[in-house]
Amino acid sequence: MLKDKGEQRTSLASLGEFGLIDHLTANLKCTQPSTVKGIGDDAAVLDFKSKKIVVSTDLLVEGVHFDLSYMPLKHLGYKAIVVNLSDIYAMNATATQVTVSIAVSNRFPLEALEELYKGIQMAAEVYKVDVVGGDTTSSTKGLLISVTAIGEVEEENITYRNGAKENDLLVVTGDVGGAFLGLKVLQREKSVFEVNPNNQPDLDMYTYIIERQLKPEARKDISKLLHDLDVKPTSMIDISDGLSSEIMHLCKQSKVGCNLYEDKIPLDPQVISTCEEFNIDSTMVALSGGEDYELLFTVRQEDFPKIKANPNFSIIGHITEAREGIHLVTRANTKIPLKAQGWNAMDEQE
Amino acid sequence: MLKDKGEQRTSLASLGEFGLIDHLTANLKCTQPSTVKGIGDDAAVLDFKSKKIVVSTDLLVEGVHFDLSYMPLKHLGYKAIVVNLSDIYAMNATATQVTVSIAVSNRFPLEALEELYKGIQMAAEVYKVDVVGGDTTSSTKGLLISVTAIGEVEEENITYRNGAKENDLLVVTGDVGGAFLGLKVLQREKSVFEVNPNNQPDLDMYTYIIERQLKPEARKDISKLLHDLDVKPTSMIDISDGLSSEIMHLCKQSKVGCNLYEDKIPLDPQVISTCEEFNIDSTMVALSGGEDYELLFTVRQEDFPKIKANPNFSIIGHITEAREGIHLVTRANTKIPLKAQGWNAMDEQE
Repeated sequence: MLKDKGEQRTSLASLGEFGLIDHLTANLKCTQPSTVKGIGDDAAVLDFKSKKIVVSTDLLVEGVHFDLSYMPLKHLGYKAIVVNLSDIYAMNATATQVTVSIAVSNRFPLEALEELYKGIQMAAEVYKVDVVGGDTTSSTKGLLISVTAIGEVEEENITYRNGAKENDLLVVTGDVGGAFLGLKVLQREKSVFEVNPNNQPDLDMYTYIIERQLKPEARKDISKLLHDLDVKPTSMIDISDGLSSEIMHLCKQSKVGCNLYEDKIPLDPQVISTCEEFNIDSTMVALSGGEDYELLFTVRQEDFPKIKANPNFSIIGHITEAREGIHLVTRANTKIPLKAQGWNAMDEQE
Repeated sequence: MLKDKGEQRTSLASLGEFGLIDHLTANLKCTQPSTVKGIGDDAAVLDFKSKKIVVSTDLLVEGVHFDLSYMPLKHLGYKAIVVNLSDIYAMNATATQVTVSIAVSNRFPLEALEELYKGIQMAAEVYKVDVVGGDTTSSTKGLLISVTAIGEVEEENITYRNGAKENDLLVVTGDVGGAFLGLKVLQREKSVFEVNPNNQPDLDMYTYIIERQLKPEARKDISKLLHDLDVKPTSMIDISDGLSSEIMHLCKQSKVGCNLYEDKIPLDPQVISTCEEFNIDSTMVALSGGEDYELLFTVRQEDFPKIKANPNFSIIGHITEAREGIHLVTRANTKIPLKAQGWNAMDEQE
């Protein structure tokens, strides 16, 4: 995608730093009532009245968090925003603003950054957040994106990681494991392409999981949905590192244990079929895959009737006393201790 | 400094991502009343009551913004915070929180990041800001620091870049040009060291300008001082790129012109003597040097008596109609158009 196919290439040096920022941010419009002043001064000015503010920040590094040989820049810009908004939604808050800083080597022409910003702008429009600041600078190698997301929330709705109580139900939104398998498919296609550049991949049977990897969505809808259902979660976290790791964060901070039921973990049919194709255990993928950007939360037992029939939610376990530990209850009804495993562990395990 | 001198080196991989963040942030204490929840959840939670919030973000890249061969990591951590706070003070606001994200290659041992965080912690203590979030990740090359600074301000005190009016006085705090000359000295010493590693540099005569480069301070004091003097600036900006560039920003956004008087520009004696030694024009250094982190602002003529005798302030010019343009009035009383020049232009000019 970054190879020269005869398209226009404008060197970044020809614009200068201020010209570049002005150019890239010209299409960004502020629409949030809380944005008093966006880009263009020493700092943005925001006004949240009596509401509480939530702030989260993330750094995405080329070669570590993304590979531009299969990640289009527009998708990358979109994803960089979405993964940060996910942290805001995990506080049961509404995302309102982001700042975006980019370090980029001179191998990237202006047109590449324009693509990146198209994705940023699209995410800002879809999620109704204002881009209110940023910094664009050169790097000695590769592309790096730092995003800080800001949101607002009424004090009584803030949901921390540390509020889970014994007997609470453990709930996850959507389905899990797809983003990791999407990456697996893309990595395989890259290997095939490197051997035979004329090979045309047929990815129709992987559209859902590839989209989960390249263009994930954050669960903007859940906060309102829970509010409408009159459910206040007792704890909440977003799934960026994998279900297993996030359950352990919730339990550690809430000082509780947990039983997770293998047969309750929601999996998309494409996840199941692709796991069979790759000969990987689908539960392992769900537990350790990461990048799903679904929300994991706990609710009190008495809220069960309010959420049981909702297709957005799967009740996957329940909270126990801390001394009972954190376990996966398998389909064969054996209890095995849950471990936090990231992608590295997964790759080694294959 | 990063060479192995037999000191302890702990590999970052041995801690894992979560262990690393916990370890580095263990000593950071939140003291701001507006910090409800700091590090440890999906997002920090802040409460500014009825005040307005200002947000600014900056990215520092090794090999672009700093050179670790003469920038100790502790100083770098300190400076990374200070340069961001400077943007908050330039809004006439009080800095309250920062988030700090770091991307680091595996060439850095844990002890190096501990040094960096010592500087971050020191700046947080000196400037009374809370470190409320961050991300630590690996990079494929070098060290990169992204800081987002947050501050609070009463609505009536917010000072933008665009409020300068005809006949306003142009005022600068402290003195300018030192940070650039400090860098020049350090670069020279590095060249000498590369030729003769046994050479012991004598830097006593450059202590002020080297400190301006390695451990700059932001003007936290000015907002309160102006308030105490009952002066409300009509516009304000911080000097990060150089006096010339910042004057042009103020004038462009305020749609005014300006006369800047060469003989009024405040220079430290070390700046003057070092300019003579390097055979550089001191006015050029003051205009284009950058990284001084002083504040540049405009006040109404009637506020002149309130600031004229204050040693923190130098009145260096006055605002004109836009069509008169932006000029430097030289010591020889000739008017020459001001140009925005950064460090690159300076290096070419030598």
